[in-house]
Amino acid sequence: MTIADRWLLPDGMDEVLPPQASRMEELRRALLDLYHRWGYDQVMPPTAEFLDSLLTGTGSDLALQTFKLTDQLTGRMMGISADVTPQVARMDAHSLKRQGPVRLCYCTNVLRATADQHQGGRSPVQVGVELFGHAGLEADLEILHLALASLAAAGAREIHLALGHIGIYRSLVQAAELDIDQERALFEALELKSPGELAARVAESVGDPALAEMFMALGRLHGGVEVLDEAREAFAEAPAAVGAALDQLRALHQGVMAAHPEVEPYFDLAELRGYAYHTGMMFAAYVPGYGQALAKGGRYDDTGRAFGRARPATGFSMDLKQLATLAPAEPPRVGIWAPAEGEGLGEAVLALREQGERVVQALPGQRTGPAEHRCDRQLVRADGHWQVTAL
Amino acid sequence: MTIADRWLLPDGMDEVLPPQASRMEELRRALLDLYHRWGYDQVMPPTAEFLDSLLTGTGSDLALQTFKLTDQLTGRMMGISADVTPQVARMDAHSLKRQGPVRLCYCTNVLRATADQHQGGRSPVQVGVELFGHAGLEADLEILHLALASLAAAGAREIHLALGHIGIYRSLVQAAELDIDQERALFEALELKSPGELAARVAESVGDPALAEMFMALGRLHGGVEVLDEAREAFAEAPAAVGAALDQLRALHQGVMAAHPEVEPYFDLAELRGYAYHTGMMFAAYVPGYGQALAKGGRYDDTGRAFGRARPATGFSMDLKQLATLAPAEPPRVGIWAPAEGEGLGEAVLALREQGERVVQALPGQRTGPAEHRCDRQLVRADGHWQVTAL
Repeated sequence: MTIADRWLLPDGMDEVLPPQASRMEELRRALLDLYHRWGYDQVMPPTAEFLDSLLTGTGSDLALQTFKLTDQLTGRMMGISADVTPQVARMDAHSLKRQGPVRLCYCTNVLRATADQHQGGRSPVQVGVELFGHAGLEADLEILHLALASLAAAGAREIHLALGHIGIYRSLVQAAELDIDQERALFEALELKSPGELAARVAESVGDPALAEMFMALGRLHGGVEVLDEAREAFAEAPAAVGAALDQLRALHQGVMAAHPEVEPYFDLAELRGYAYHTGMMFAAYVPGYGQALAKGGRYDDTGRAFGRARPATGFSMDLKQLATLAPAEPPRVGIWAPAEGEGLGEAVLALREQGERVVQALPGQRTGPAEHRCDRQLVRADGHWQVTAL
Repeated sequence: MTIADRWLLPDGMDEVLPPQASRMEELRRALLDLYHRWGYDQVMPPTAEFLDSLLTGTGSDLALQTFKLTDQLTGRMMGISADVTPQVARMDAHSLKRQGPVRLCYCTNVLRATADQHQGGRSPVQVGVELFGHAGLEADLEILHLALASLAAAGAREIHLALGHIGIYRSLVQAAELDIDQERALFEALELKSPGELAARVAESVGDPALAEMFMALGRLHGGVEVLDEAREAFAEAPAAVGAALDQLRALHQGVMAAHPEVEPYFDLAELRGYAYHTGMMFAAYVPGYGQALAKGGRYDDTGRAFGRARPATGFSMDLKQLATLAPAEPPRVGIWAPAEGEGLGEAVLALREQGERVVQALPGQRTGPAEHRCDRQLVRADGHWQVTAL
């Protein structure tokens, strides 16, 4: 292996250099502080754990995304966390076991085995919040508010919010009594967003003409808030759960618009992301110039069941690496350049640092100077005292 | 797999719950801010990278500690970072390519395949600094100061500092012209700290009686600063490099004592930790009640050579998880409890949060109250206004 080869990093496994790393640290702090002010407690899930535990109740997408390795101590398979949400659900269900609503937040490195066009690189820094123990819309609305506030904190000016509800499709599938293969074919047709494909699958498997018409409507129902009115008509004869889901979406829309009139809402009733996982409303927030969603979340009740305690749950997460690119990273331009030695210099430098100043001390023989080390002032000895002067 | 089993975490792969996670976050910020004030720029090395790159120039210890996995995109072997120091050295040598001294700091999760009795768990959060591009004692002294200041920031009151220098043993081995097997046997005898074993190995492989006596002295030379005087006598006839190493240790001792008279120094001239890796002074800082060192570091020149640029280097690292246990983690006890709804409540809550207050809002039907959510005040409506009152 040559020198030129050795430093080549795997695709999507980036190193973060200054000043971008400082920008990420700054944003990490701003977000965790925001969540703290909303009453969210920080947790740190393990980077690796047993695969059974990691993949419980999460569906096959996550299994494909998870790097596997053998634990040398036990011989059991472990996985590197690719999504901390299920881990946090376990913490709520098993480790914390608190009564009532529990609010948790996190910011941690995860790894993904394959690059997902929706997710960015293979080494995101996942930051987000989860609210357990409350099934009401108020919890979902709190999560939506926090997602929008997070993007604003990162510097997003224009936000497009896509809202959906997995309950609509799920109720129709139940009413149509589809078998697994039929459901899968229909699911794929909806994901393809192909009306022709959808019509063929519906004709194949949905006998009831009213239900067939509803599945076809699902493929059309995306756009502004008027979609909710159209859906009300199209699903007038649908199971009650569909109406309830539409009511929830309308209430969420009103709640979001009241607090964030600047946000552009978008509805997609055939959005099926995380179908195995989500149980209610789902959302994704977009910013112009970014092809993929910067924040994604929704309701995912009962993930904790596998760990002994089924709990309502709603939350969202983001990739701090991606989020930190919304605002430019600027290297610190303030600093005091200190010489390598001098009488009483150590104390003078220490005092400045204790006041919070950034002081870069020269090392003997050093050829680079204050400019290379981003200092705007210098420490000089005059009249028997160390003084800070402009450069 | 039963429910009870599913949550069991692999040995040494811990989850961090509140309030310990907040304590770690607090300390992370304090340390990164400290390093910033000293002119260190933050970097974030990748969690996984190609194994060749990760293990270049680091010796076999790290190879054993590194989890391996196959990159599905390239079919090449990758490793999960078990020690970020070599990664940071690569960043300096290859990615940054700056002239003059470069100061870098980091705080990131690493994973270790095997539990090392010297290192704590298998999922440390490695935090530390590296100073590249300066071969002088001033750089080593800066690193020692920062290590001691880091421990003080974490709450350490009594610090024992063990100092050593790999150059002493290395020079004697060179002078004795040992072959690899002889050297390994001698190395193991010194590591065992067994005078009998050492005497046997020395008799076997060191022909020169003066050098044999020096190797025997090496096994005895540990203790307070008086060890340096004894070493001066014992190594009077040794190669010049041994004298130079002793001079360096004395100068470092003086520098540390001048700034940190409270620190207890200890010298161990047969300390051989990181033999494949270190090239000069080495240190480990201990705190009573902790069996293992809380901070470890030293000089490791030329690691960057494999990446095209040999550079002097010195630094240290710590485990933030372990360090955060030096001071008790206290959950926040301040917060304002807000009701679920009320006229103008949203604005009142928002205003308080913008002032930096922690406000926990009840969700409809919630049965837990301000005590469970660590609030010391409440938001109540009186005389047509929302007011914060004591609980």
